[in-house]
Amino acid sequence: MSTKPKQRTAISPTRAEDYPEWYQQVIRGADLAEVSPVRGCMVIKPWGYALWENIQRALDEMFKASGHRNAYFPLFIPLSFLEKEAEHVDGFAKECAVVTHHRLEEGGEGGLVPAGPLEEPLVVRPTSETIIGASFSKWVQSYRDLPLLINQWANVVRWEMRTRLFLRTAEFLWQEGHTAHASDSEASDHTLRMLDIYAKFANEFMAMPVLTGEKTEAERFPGAVRTYCIEAMMQDRKALQAGTSHFLGQNFAKASDIQFLDENGDRTYAWTTSWGVSTRLIGGLIMTHADDDGLMLPPRLAPAHVVIMPITFKAEKPEDVEQYCQSLAEELRQQTYHGRHIEVEIDGRDLRGGEKNWQWVKKGVPIRLEVGPRDMEKDSVFMARRDQSAKEKASVPRAQFVLEIVKLLDEIQQGMFDRALAFRESNTHVIDTKEEFYEFFSKEAEGGFALTHYNADPALEGKIKNDLQVTVRCIPQESNHETGTCAFTGEPSPQRVIWGKSY
Amino acid sequence: MSTKPKQRTAISPTRAEDYPEWYQQVIRGADLAEVSPVRGCMVIKPWGYALWENIQRALDEMFKASGHRNAYFPLFIPLSFLEKEAEHVDGFAKECAVVTHHRLEEGGEGGLVPAGPLEEPLVVRPTSETIIGASFSKWVQSYRDLPLLINQWANVVRWEMRTRLFLRTAEFLWQEGHTAHASDSEASDHTLRMLDIYAKFANEFMAMPVLTGEKTEAERFPGAVRTYCIEAMMQDRKALQAGTSHFLGQNFAKASDIQFLDENGDRTYAWTTSWGVSTRLIGGLIMTHADDDGLMLPPRLAPAHVVIMPITFKAEKPEDVEQYCQSLAEELRQQTYHGRHIEVEIDGRDLRGGEKNWQWVKKGVPIRLEVGPRDMEKDSVFMARRDQSAKEKASVPRAQFVLEIVKLLDEIQQGMFDRALAFRESNTHVIDTKEEFYEFFSKEAEGGFALTHYNADPALEGKIKNDLQVTVRCIPQESNHETGTCAFTGEPSPQRVIWGKSY
Repeated sequence: MSTKPKQRTAISPTRAEDYPEWYQQVIRGADLAEVSPVRGCMVIKPWGYALWENIQRALDEMFKASGHRNAYFPLFIPLSFLEKEAEHVDGFAKECAVVTHHRLEEGGEGGLVPAGPLEEPLVVRPTSETIIGASFSKWVQSYRDLPLLINQWANVVRWEMRTRLFLRTAEFLWQEGHTAHASDSEASDHTLRMLDIYAKFANEFMAMPVLTGEKTEAERFPGAVRTYCIEAMMQDRKALQAGTSHFLGQNFAKASDIQFLDENGDRTYAWTTSWGVSTRLIGGLIMTHADDDGLMLPPRLAPAHVVIMPITFKAEKPEDVEQYCQSLAEELRQQTYHGRHIEVEIDGRDLRGGEKNWQWVKKGVPIRLEVGPRDMEKDSVFMARRDQSAKEKASVPRAQFVLEIVKLLDEIQQGMFDRALAFRESNTHVIDTKEEFYEFFSKEAEGGFALTHYNADPALEGKIKNDLQVTVRCIPQESNHETGTCAFTGEPSPQRVIWGKSY
Repeated sequence: MSTKPKQRTAISPTRAEDYPEWYQQVIRGADLAEVSPVRGCMVIKPWGYALWENIQRALDEMFKASGHRNAYFPLFIPLSFLEKEAEHVDGFAKECAVVTHHRLEEGGEGGLVPAGPLEEPLVVRPTSETIIGASFSKWVQSYRDLPLLINQWANVVRWEMRTRLFLRTAEFLWQEGHTAHASDSEASDHTLRMLDIYAKFANEFMAMPVLTGEKTEAERFPGAVRTYCIEAMMQDRKALQAGTSHFLGQNFAKASDIQFLDENGDRTYAWTTSWGVSTRLIGGLIMTHADDDGLMLPPRLAPAHVVIMPITFKAEKPEDVEQYCQSLAEELRQQTYHGRHIEVEIDGRDLRGGEKNWQWVKKGVPIRLEVGPRDMEKDSVFMARRDQSAKEKASVPRAQFVLEIVKLLDEIQQGMFDRALAFRESNTHVIDTKEEFYEFFSKEAEGGFALTHYNADPALEGKIKNDLQVTVRCIPQESNHETGTCAFTGEPSPQRVIWGKSY
């Protein structure tokens, strides 16, 4: 029989065959995380956690360089705090883990039952807004105490019925920034400054091109005056909201009683901001860069930049090959790539070469090297790049490889960004009529972003969401701000906005 | 009147006047942490959290250098997991936060009430032993998967009735290491290796001299085969257990079903270890080094090594002084101290010089510099060291200060260790009779560590604990292991052990 065999991919199904299942299999193949015995909670495995640590380190440096300091606030929120918030926030999320007891007692037959009921139930923080507000209310007394720029790295819990690793889990890890300022304009500027930091991080570290802009009223954080976001296009052409920055005006300061004496001795409510990103970023990174062979890591966040696989089975003296790989690794580690030492894994496990190689492909390491006795003789390495086909391998003189490693990593980083940007641009369309718009978003396998004029009416956005599961992802900052005509009503429109389906 | 005024101290009361209250006031004076509106939980303020970050960074580097990788496991533990543990662990701690509902509903009059009862209550992790065990059971299949060396940085909750900032709080931050090995001896060696890392960290980074040794049966971690600890003497001569390392044999592997196929193809239970330190270390650091003027930070962990206070009120051109301070700070920051850039704060706040100076004394910064117009003219700095009297200040040529800063910090670090070691040694006594022992520990203002022979009988240790609140802190590793006669019974004793009151 001469039927051509199907092309083999390391991940099955492929993106085209079953996108959601492909996503789960990429995570499994890269050994990033797994579901836990606790409903909706994930175990972040070492490779996934190392990626999160690199994300944290990069963001933390940017937060600190812009004057923020980290602090830590309690895991629990008294119910009364949330009641206060519920009073003035309609969209208050009520799905959360509630602690009602503080002891376990034997319940007979080896069982344990909750005992010691709490006078006031406690909620596991879904966000620390209210408890941080209570601290700010004490810490801020005078204009001299402002600006107060605080960040927290923490776990938070939101009870979710349908969960997906990294994208939506009951417990997740995040950072939440909270700042208080002496003026409206300063707080407003700070909100945009943090948005810029998020955009810079997504573009330059994650190689994930993002659009920045303001949310419409319907998508605004409850209680905020303005909500800004970074939005990225995933490979199924849906939008992922990857980070938000909120200008809260004096709303939260009033709820939490954050007042200060200004320079004239007048008592005023502070202006506050809040902003956050979470382990959801890892979901975004996967869906931006992974392919049908698995994860692809941008070098600036990769837990390892290079993996070296010694090929010893044909070697007369396997220890010579191992020694050669060790010294190569040491030489590479002495170099720095964007402030971090080049990180090298040596995989000397007793495993078939093919299997070993595919494991590292699926883990997404930017550069794979095979080094056997013949490479050693030639003083060269056999190199493969994760951003190229797994079959493309080239022999490179060792000295040249060492000399060019930083340039190579930069090239991979930039190439990944360019490819993702080209994908987004080729799937972003200017659409000017309702018919075209509905057609664009009705095809299952198509879609993307539509740049369409609209009259800024929340009711209209609600109808479109209801019809198509499509919403305004943001009112883009980068825009020529040309006015126009709403595609749906013919009414005037201040500028085109970005529409899309979203996670 | 010529009565000599009482010596002023920055912290009131002094250690001698009221030690527990002094401790709280040091924390307040250094702005490390404060009690929160949530019973038993603390807010760790930026200065305290920066200290914790430095502790984390140093330990994390040592964990990674010894082959460990970080991971993250769920905050919640299903009740059934704890029931399993309770079955075989008598000392199972039952004071914990129990989540019983997953929603809040309006309860009328703006109130919220718990709703959505869980089928199986969840416990907020008091430790992750059981949930990590469940993962290990999946991850470990073959001897090739071993050793498995995992660490987690996380928050944990143990319901405590009487809490003290850092020393005992309902929620605290910690790291818990969990490892699985293919042999008894490898796991046993690993337990001691981690003990060494803790001791190295306490001695070299915290400048807190610790004794290392094994716990007696009475103080052993429930379920462990052997528990080792680091123990430090606080300034009230009580012991603080600052870290523990447990050899668990196959006990936990059996409970969690962690089995592997060994090289002969036989199915065997793994041998496991666990070890942890927590934010309690900060309590230990305070009680080792702080004095009646407040916190004193060991340079290797200090969030800032140097604070520069520009004195501008007499300057013709204040901006020149500020400029001078900025350039000095830049020059200092370019140097590294034990792998970290020298961290410099410039305090240009509009505040009286005396008040400003005392704030930094209380915060414990190793070196304070005042720079006014006259210092600038002489190209010198006016320097004070936190490890010396606040009145001892000296003018030092700027170039010399910059040249010698690293040496100076090392000298301070070593001096702090030496002083703490001398204190412990002068309060550690060889005691050979029961009468002397009871007298030693009965005086309120005295006490310390007693090196006393004992017959290793738990019942006797229980009686002594009951009589004097004194326990065996550890069976010291460093010992000449001379045998002797139990001071309480006259029976044979294998070696002297360390007795003391403890936190």
